[in-house]
Amino acid sequence: MKDRPDDSFHVFDTTLRDGAQREGINLTVADKLTIARHLDDFGVGFIEGGWPGANPRDTEFFDRAQAEIDFKHAQLVAFGATRKAGVKAEDDAQVKALLDSGAPVITLVAKSHDRHVELALRTTLEENLAMVRDTVAYLRSQGRRVFLDCEHFFDGYRANADYAKRVVATAHEAGADVVILCDTNGGMLPGQIDAVVRTVLADTGARLGIHAQDDTGCAVANSLAAVDAGATHVQCTANGYGERVGNANLFPVVAALELKYGRRVLPPGAMEEMTRISHAIAEVVNLTPSTHQPYVGVSAFAHKAGLHASAIKVDPDLYQHIDPERVGNTMRMLVSDMAGRASIELKGKELGIDLGGDRALVQRVVERVKERELAGYTYEAADASFELLLRAEAEGRVRRYFRVESWRAIVETRPDGTHANEATVKLWAKGERIVATAEGNGPVNALDKALRVGLERIYPQLAKMELVDYKVRILEGKHGTESTTRVLVSTADGQGEWSTVGVAENVIDASWQALDDAYAYGLLRAGVEPQE
Amino acid sequence: MKDRPDDSFHVFDTTLRDGAQREGINLTVADKLTIARHLDDFGVGFIEGGWPGANPRDTEFFDRAQAEIDFKHAQLVAFGATRKAGVKAEDDAQVKALLDSGAPVITLVAKSHDRHVELALRTTLEENLAMVRDTVAYLRSQGRRVFLDCEHFFDGYRANADYAKRVVATAHEAGADVVILCDTNGGMLPGQIDAVVRTVLADTGARLGIHAQDDTGCAVANSLAAVDAGATHVQCTANGYGERVGNANLFPVVAALELKYGRRVLPPGAMEEMTRISHAIAEVVNLTPSTHQPYVGVSAFAHKAGLHASAIKVDPDLYQHIDPERVGNTMRMLVSDMAGRASIELKGKELGIDLGGDRALVQRVVERVKERELAGYTYEAADASFELLLRAEAEGRVRRYFRVESWRAIVETRPDGTHANEATVKLWAKGERIVATAEGNGPVNALDKALRVGLERIYPQLAKMELVDYKVRILEGKHGTESTTRVLVSTADGQGEWSTVGVAENVIDASWQALDDAYAYGLLRAGVEPQE
Repeated sequence: MKDRPDDSFHVFDTTLRDGAQREGINLTVADKLTIARHLDDFGVGFIEGGWPGANPRDTEFFDRAQAEIDFKHAQLVAFGATRKAGVKAEDDAQVKALLDSGAPVITLVAKSHDRHVELALRTTLEENLAMVRDTVAYLRSQGRRVFLDCEHFFDGYRANADYAKRVVATAHEAGADVVILCDTNGGMLPGQIDAVVRTVLADTGARLGIHAQDDTGCAVANSLAAVDAGATHVQCTANGYGERVGNANLFPVVAALELKYGRRVLPPGAMEEMTRISHAIAEVVNLTPSTHQPYVGVSAFAHKAGLHASAIKVDPDLYQHIDPERVGNTMRMLVSDMAGRASIELKGKELGIDLGGDRALVQRVVERVKERELAGYTYEAADASFELLLRAEAEGRVRRYFRVESWRAIVETRPDGTHANEATVKLWAKGERIVATAEGNGPVNALDKALRVGLERIYPQLAKMELVDYKVRILEGKHGTESTTRVLVSTADGQGEWSTVGVAENVIDASWQALDDAYAYGLLRAGVEPQE
Repeated sequence: MKDRPDDSFHVFDTTLRDGAQREGINLTVADKLTIARHLDDFGVGFIEGGWPGANPRDTEFFDRAQAEIDFKHAQLVAFGATRKAGVKAEDDAQVKALLDSGAPVITLVAKSHDRHVELALRTTLEENLAMVRDTVAYLRSQGRRVFLDCEHFFDGYRANADYAKRVVATAHEAGADVVILCDTNGGMLPGQIDAVVRTVLADTGARLGIHAQDDTGCAVANSLAAVDAGATHVQCTANGYGERVGNANLFPVVAALELKYGRRVLPPGAMEEMTRISHAIAEVVNLTPSTHQPYVGVSAFAHKAGLHASAIKVDPDLYQHIDPERVGNTMRMLVSDMAGRASIELKGKELGIDLGGDRALVQRVVERVKERELAGYTYEAADASFELLLRAEAEGRVRRYFRVESWRAIVETRPDGTHANEATVKLWAKGERIVATAEGNGPVNALDKALRVGLERIYPQLAKMELVDYKVRILEGKHGTESTTRVLVSTADGQGEWSTVGVAENVIDASWQALDDAYAYGLLRAGVEPQE
């Protein structure tokens, strides 16, 4: 623990526990360890790793995390429930598992809504308080730092404010360092938070935290409202992952605190890593990063309206509330049917191409883009294809590295159940006619291999290139397999990545186009002169 | 205009104007007309249709909307700018276009940030005020209702509060019915909104509106904060579409007003249509509806944690802030590796299958699901495939309608540039061996057709079935075309839709599996008895 943040404000991450309850997420222990490292890199103070004992994967996670990760900033937190009704804390197996996990900090969840105590726990209000008191005191006696989550707090406060406050006071008096008020069902609005938090603070003297769910679309605002009212501990998840709609999103919450409130809650340099870390975590959980996330989304600083582009040419601050570099993101000019000349010029500059103030050229490019976008192409996500288009217009010719005569892919499942995928390409490169065949695990993979087999002798630079992402989108989706298909491919050569697009009636043809552009761009990047 | 909402509160939608500035949206006039009908069905009071004159598609939209749509609730609004500096309002071509559009309401956008007046408009502060005064007064003299958007208002207020307020006062005095304070760069936080709105209200006496962008993740909260401070007009877009991160999302904003504030701002019955309308608009713009949107997302009331499921068995209100039916959504139990027995039982009930309290069966299903999810299957989005799995476990056998002996698909591009896609399937159905070949616009389409050609004589029910959606997802995407592919297919038979999943090394095999399940489920639905 080399550089622990100031304990006066807690950034508490629960991606690995609450975040994992998002529909579509399924984390292995390895995934959790990777995410924990990313979170520690970012500098959060606390990483709630899971529910050891209740969840075998989580028990393993705590063992391995403490053995394998040398945390620079964060402390590991184990999550679990108060002792069962009628059982002593020291005899409760699940409480024991919390201690056995070895985590220095333990968050206990307790009911604070009388109805839940009666219907879900099926015990008495007094016993529930004893469960809180005993478990907190017991864990403190074992040397652990204890936080207590008051589940359903705001709904509970509305139903029976006295009881809800008694739960807070009980936890505080028993030794819980922070008592977290949870909007578990997510139904609160920011205007309702302030009065509750102020009253609870005044009446109990406890140090308070906030845990907001996003069911009304206000989790970030609710978290900030609680901080404004005196809470000094916020529970969030990366990318807002969580049950139902999700949890308060760590990134806009810390961005508000650091960049708007001017409050240091993360280590120096953390904010500039935010975009990278958001995307890295999305990759681990295997979810496409939300393109429209505040601060870190690919679209967050992407400008489309022609008028916005014109103003940005004068000063980017005219249409951006912060400099994207402060969160590790970049400004992007969108090339679309709304693009005007300013957009194309700025985009050209972004790609390192000087359009030399040639208005006729810029106008031609604007027209080509609108025409192709109408056909289904999207240059917004395929910078390399756009650059090839731009260069073709600027140079007056299309750079060709090879010319395809014909190609064929065969996919079959035989009676014995085995699968076969074979592709043959016939093409011309540097004046030579080449016929190449390859097998693969699918038709596009087989075509890609055949293309490489055919061309690698002539263009050895292809060997370094690897397809790293492949996305298929069916346009006019209402007609299933009879629609237009758009394929976006990302290719890497060890030094960078680029994206290309293909549009056709079927996925194979569309993939072919995207691959063609991918290799053409890769060879351009490698400085190879085109020769058919 | 049969049932216009009370004019005391304005729900003002700008999906067709500001929403269209979202990266990835490209609306035809037909798309705009369809969306306008959906918005009118929902009951918004105002539909800002675009910028006539500046945008030829928009000019056409206004003509056709007024000719073809019989609006039940909404009024059409034309958007545009104040007159150019140094030009009379009545001589400004763009202002004329606003009048020519025929829209009964016009929203003018004006600069209210001194820096923008100087840098972007390149005119004086006084001339800018004259531009506001003259244009508003001129349009009023022509019988139009005028609203004025104060662009960059909050940033402008921070820089030069007096000038910003003068813009508001000028517009108000010239006859603008509502002056809208815009957080154009989206940098505001809810705590900052209240004081500004109250002061402007007190100092100018104007009727105020709010237009929030979502760059800090607080657009919904900012809109509500403004309403709390006295604004009576909110500008939003469907699904939060808009420039950069997006605009304040219409749906959580009206849901907060109607369901939390108890304020009627839409016609009776509108809220129950919200989910349907949100999804319908997403379809028109051809964007996958965000699964995690508040209220209307597919995941908004989807419960994953086993403990949540157990509580929900007792009473759904224990983990839901509202009854999903109030917004036209439904509760869903998720079947995942987190599913416990309660989740499977509730899911079975949801699908109409009585698991008869058979604990061993339920446990077997839990295990099968976890195993398949590990391999890449996702039952969360493929209810029909899950139902087939459940029935197979419950009945002890897999229902087969046909048995595939072998299949083959050939995709080729010939030297003359023509494309060909042909598939042959060999299968057994009702004791008969069938060989069928078909051509299509792609390999999956050709296989689908061959399967139908082969089976339609034996199962005429297949004729009514149509593939209506087809999604491909590459898992472990880091390795391009060599990853596992998951295909989700939606099929309809005129009476309903169902979703199935297939997972394999390549898209063709995965598609085949999803189609196989789709037809098996379709025949099950049609009441056909399985016979191989």
